[in-house]
Amino acid sequence: MRVTVLVGGVGGARFLLGVKAALGLPATGEGESEHEITAVVNVGDDVWMHGLRICPDLDTCMYTLGGGIDTERGWGRVGETWTVRDELAAYGAEPTWFGLGDRDLATHLVRSRMLRAGYPLSDVTAALCDRWRPGVRLLPATDDRVETHVVVDDPDTGPQARKAIHFQEWWVRLHAEPAAHEIVSVGADEATVLPAARDAIRDADAVVLAPSNPVVSIGTILNVPGVRDALRETKAKVVGLSPIVGGKPVRGMADACLTAIGVETTAEAVGRHLGARADGGVLDGWLVHSGDTADVPGVDVRSVPLLMTDVEATAEMARRALELAGTTVA
Amino acid sequence: MRVTVLVGGVGGARFLLGVKAALGLPATGEGESEHEITAVVNVGDDVWMHGLRICPDLDTCMYTLGGGIDTERGWGRVGETWTVRDELAAYGAEPTWFGLGDRDLATHLVRSRMLRAGYPLSDVTAALCDRWRPGVRLLPATDDRVETHVVVDDPDTGPQARKAIHFQEWWVRLHAEPAAHEIVSVGADEATVLPAARDAIRDADAVVLAPSNPVVSIGTILNVPGVRDALRETKAKVVGLSPIVGGKPVRGMADACLTAIGVETTAEAVGRHLGARADGGVLDGWLVHSGDTADVPGVDVRSVPLLMTDVEATAEMARRALELAGTTVA
Repeated sequence: MRVTVLVGGVGGARFLLGVKAALGLPATGEGESEHEITAVVNVGDDVWMHGLRICPDLDTCMYTLGGGIDTERGWGRVGETWTVRDELAAYGAEPTWFGLGDRDLATHLVRSRMLRAGYPLSDVTAALCDRWRPGVRLLPATDDRVETHVVVDDPDTGPQARKAIHFQEWWVRLHAEPAAHEIVSVGADEATVLPAARDAIRDADAVVLAPSNPVVSIGTILNVPGVRDALRETKAKVVGLSPIVGGKPVRGMADACLTAIGVETTAEAVGRHLGARADGGVLDGWLVHSGDTADVPGVDVRSVPLLMTDVEATAEMARRALELAGTTVA
Repeated sequence: MRVTVLVGGVGGARFLLGVKAALGLPATGEGESEHEITAVVNVGDDVWMHGLRICPDLDTCMYTLGGGIDTERGWGRVGETWTVRDELAAYGAEPTWFGLGDRDLATHLVRSRMLRAGYPLSDVTAALCDRWRPGVRLLPATDDRVETHVVVDDPDTGPQARKAIHFQEWWVRLHAEPAAHEIVSVGADEATVLPAARDAIRDADAVVLAPSNPVVSIGTILNVPGVRDALRETKAKVVGLSPIVGGKPVRGMADACLTAIGVETTAEAVGRHLGARADGGVLDGWLVHSGDTADVPGVDVRSVPLLMTDVEATAEMARRALELAGTTVA
């Protein structure tokens, strides 16, 4: 079976552990399997910092599936040290608010060097995965630069002027506290879906939208020209899992993002925002958490437990998603 | 007094400690002084590695004078860790033979970012020195890229083919073992001396050639167009200190470099190679180690202890050099 999953960072990576387990693969690392899992990963959080290209979502997926993640934080490398960050701060090198770990930094060095040598991000990712062996084909949604920027009141001048800042600055440095007037996928106009990602969606037996941030993870992937076309064209069913449980994001500050685009923080509102494929949206099925309800016209909605408390619970979520997509695992 | 010193890495940096002490400055850090010391630093060892611009001699001077050096090794940062290097090796990222420390790496990140933003190396060096406060004005000999490459027998094919490799590869990886057929200052043809370095030589009260490698440190500085002109034009006397003591280099593998350019490893041969200013060379005075002798036509030669065993011994060397240059420290 070919399963293609659209994912963001921490939540998406954890969900992929469950998809692997559901298909009989070891959660971390590679294993023999007749099934093929492809993750189409958000690149909107990617950023140049200190001259290095940082791809938080790709790296979180790679480290999580490769067994190198700090499982407590959910991002970055286990056993991480922070020598370089402290030294950069001693030079007064901005930004100082981004957690650039020593181990993690090597990934960015390898990536930046390859990008500067002209390799596309997808090739770079494959090269990095030669080490991590995630057991999932990790594909950036696009090789082009698509970055999420957030329009906020200029902190220097107040409400009379607005300023667009990189998503990372809003999310990591400002904890999504200044209200987002707008969330923009900078570069999306000129971007094209990665052909391999497009094909993975079109040729899949099931397409799953991980319970990732519906605006800045899933939403940004959908903003890449060609992704919605592929979702429209695929013969597979497309099933999403709600990242909103009991009216709150399970993790992160998705509510701040949803507010910015005028969508309520409920599983129903997010489902309606994504919309039915038949109506120009992307969903055939929508899984909401047990106890939540959602009426999404044209979409098959089911309530199942949606808390990724451990790999087995997550695998069960994946099984329910695949089931709703009309596939059954042997 | 304005003293300008041409220097390489470890030996040059240590000599600068002595120059500072001789002029009543604290060996490390800044101090009040009527004297001004300028170091014109070799850039021939500079190299791009892992996408980072590494300037070994500038950094060794900066760390040594700023109190951040590992005094045992003579290069790199004290208390250094090697996490990033090990991670790069885990990715199979070449080269693996270069000692890229975590603390040191922050310097290269700041530098590389500024260089890519268009700042010249001299401005970058000044910015880095804002942190280190070396108490000596550190100037790259040029803002242009001048790199020492070494022509050796191709290790893959043997003597029938030759190959030019970066000096660092020959020196650090191959320990200068394959005989150097030629040592080339790549880029020197199109380079120009840094104007501030030229002026520091021209306007000095004394110019001193540190006991650095006469080929790949002092020699490479002299290969930068404009440096010899400035040495010819300066009203100051130019005094060199022999890095060869008792027919051997005090440190490093200068003999391998001298052999490559057909110069004997003796204080006399190096003095003659540098030559008298009156004869188109660069020296007015030449200090050789006690017990060594040298007959260098047109050059005032003195024998004094030339072992930098501690700062005071080094300061005494600097005093003798300044004395031979006809200046006296108040």
